[in-house]
Amino acid sequence: MYQLNPPQRILLGPGPSDVHPQTLQAQALPLIGHMDPAFIQIMNEVAEMLRPVFGTKNHLTLPISATGSAGMETVFVNLIEPGDKALICVNGLFGERMTDVAARCGAEVTRVEAPWGEAIDPAQVAEAIKKDKFKVVGIVHAETSTGVKQPLEEIAKIAHDHGALFVVDCVTSIGGIPIEADKVGIDAAYAGTQKCLSAPPGLSPVTFNDRAVDVIMNRKTKVQSWYLDLSMIAKYWGGTTRVYHHTAPISSIYAIHAALRLIHEEGLENVFARHAKNGLALQKGLEAMGLKLVVENPDHRLPELTTVYVPEGIADAEVRSRLLHEYSIEIGGGLGVFAGKIWRIGLMGHSCRKRNVLLVLSALESILSGLGYKCEKGAAMAAAEAVYAG
Amino acid sequence: MYQLNPPQRILLGPGPSDVHPQTLQAQALPLIGHMDPAFIQIMNEVAEMLRPVFGTKNHLTLPISATGSAGMETVFVNLIEPGDKALICVNGLFGERMTDVAARCGAEVTRVEAPWGEAIDPAQVAEAIKKDKFKVVGIVHAETSTGVKQPLEEIAKIAHDHGALFVVDCVTSIGGIPIEADKVGIDAAYAGTQKCLSAPPGLSPVTFNDRAVDVIMNRKTKVQSWYLDLSMIAKYWGGTTRVYHHTAPISSIYAIHAALRLIHEEGLENVFARHAKNGLALQKGLEAMGLKLVVENPDHRLPELTTVYVPEGIADAEVRSRLLHEYSIEIGGGLGVFAGKIWRIGLMGHSCRKRNVLLVLSALESILSGLGYKCEKGAAMAAAEAVYAG
Repeated sequence: MYQLNPPQRILLGPGPSDVHPQTLQAQALPLIGHMDPAFIQIMNEVAEMLRPVFGTKNHLTLPISATGSAGMETVFVNLIEPGDKALICVNGLFGERMTDVAARCGAEVTRVEAPWGEAIDPAQVAEAIKKDKFKVVGIVHAETSTGVKQPLEEIAKIAHDHGALFVVDCVTSIGGIPIEADKVGIDAAYAGTQKCLSAPPGLSPVTFNDRAVDVIMNRKTKVQSWYLDLSMIAKYWGGTTRVYHHTAPISSIYAIHAALRLIHEEGLENVFARHAKNGLALQKGLEAMGLKLVVENPDHRLPELTTVYVPEGIADAEVRSRLLHEYSIEIGGGLGVFAGKIWRIGLMGHSCRKRNVLLVLSALESILSGLGYKCEKGAAMAAAEAVYAG
Repeated sequence: MYQLNPPQRILLGPGPSDVHPQTLQAQALPLIGHMDPAFIQIMNEVAEMLRPVFGTKNHLTLPISATGSAGMETVFVNLIEPGDKALICVNGLFGERMTDVAARCGAEVTRVEAPWGEAIDPAQVAEAIKKDKFKVVGIVHAETSTGVKQPLEEIAKIAHDHGALFVVDCVTSIGGIPIEADKVGIDAAYAGTQKCLSAPPGLSPVTFNDRAVDVIMNRKTKVQSWYLDLSMIAKYWGGTTRVYHHTAPISSIYAIHAALRLIHEEGLENVFARHAKNGLALQKGLEAMGLKLVVENPDHRLPELTTVYVPEGIADAEVRSRLLHEYSIEIGGGLGVFAGKIWRIGLMGHSCRKRNVLLVLSALESILSGLGYKCEKGAAMAAAEAVYAG
């Protein structure tokens, strides 16, 4: 029968990231029941540790029992009723996915677009929102397909002035850059565990403020998904007496508990500073190697996910395959319009370490040089070191 | 910050069951990426090990990345289009849930009912199916709320004679009793990992035969759930080139891989025999204690989940609370019409051991005797031992 013997990788792709050994060990703990008083306490602690990472005091903050895309679906399936209008910002694959998910919930979707690799311009949102009565404005905070960091405050204000709910995809931002949901005015957000939180994939943290909860509680139609219906899930996660809905994924909850504890022990500010510094070091290193970053505006670059063009004459798949098989380093390829054209290098959570910056820069330099790409030997590592020194 | 230190339980409720240490350790293995060739191989092995547990050769057999209730939703959301007619058999909470899920997918639901604690009578299904053109007949194989084992063959034949798809909830049957999907004629089924497979909750194995796949591929409308849309998931799990859909829950896949390996190493027939024997021993023991089993027909009793009435004058909650806090044994209470009236004692997967039968019988005898319940001391354990001896 099949033995389970997965190779040991260094995960520097767009997620999953490397998981801290303490978090992995949490998943080896024996299970308890999903209605056990001891488990209810663990759930409460998870919710309490999640809120500051979202930058919120929202009561309705919990991990949905499925991966990040199910978090996206949770937000739309609960907020949207057939015929509602949604204004969705699209500058990458996950904005695109948001339009698909919203439409499947019965939303009439209007798109505001920016080229892949650029942020959405608030002026365009302000213009588009005038043309109809939108219930929801949706946007991606950290576009995993492009590496773009989206400024949120102006667009939040535009949405609120219009009376719309502001919905944000925080899958790749949570734990890597500040979200500040309450300060920004995010009404509903969803995230993933397998990026900067460095827990295994399997849960999607979500948060809803009172305004969003009011919308959910005053729906005229039933939520089309039983599994993601927050009116029931909330009674399991947050009621005074807990009502069984589905069997919570116990081991995954142990893992997010352990991962969140590690984040709070390091301190959120320190975690963000670590991501900022390592991301910058990687980006300076890649530029010193003569490579071109996809995101031109430095203010819109995600520190946790760097996107870089594959240099001319170099075969994308060969480089990634050699990184994986010879160096055991995983980086990501491009998706959609960027397929074959860019690499996506993640420095997320436990993967976000100086060691990994130096490893991936030197491995890339070796492989590219071997393929005839011209670059000054050692320049990348020196540029990275300069960031750490300075 | 919060330490994670869950108590060590003996899980004899309706699931989750105890997880074998080897399966727990599989979850402590470092992660690899969801598109890593090594992970694709692990996925293939999981599918291959799942098929015989369902009793099928169906190509489209895979674990959905969410718990069992999401498996139910996967089946209905993919097979049903708005206005389709579904005949659903209801003799417990999970049949009830099936009507809710199907209706949320736009199905017009007709119910065939039996009292909680009894199996569905095929004659009633034959009568009801004449009255309309049903696309789907849905039924629960192992009703977790009542402990009833549902015979399937006759009802499968009735559904097929009518031209309907036969859909079966195998959440609590998989790995505990034979399913024999191909032989019975099950067109689509969903299951859970946290019962007799003894993997942690978080995945829902599903299987669809060619007839069901044809229906999915010839839909006129888009599947209303993006996350559960099999036309996309199938390309990630089974395509010749794998197309990214969502990030698979890596650690959970490791766990189901390890759990399935343990089952096949023991041998499926041996696993079923172990469940049959321990279940019978528990049931004989409870009866020897003077307790009354909920399911009167012995042929309709699940070995993996025994339901028994709380004796008159005994407080349900007190007994379960003392079992949990003094003996660290979890058993389940009643749901729905059975709330406060029955106990549900699971012997599932790794929990299904003679040790646990003796532990729960003697703990129950001690607690009940202490509360003034009259029963012959040691009779329960003797009756159980007689089953093992015989």
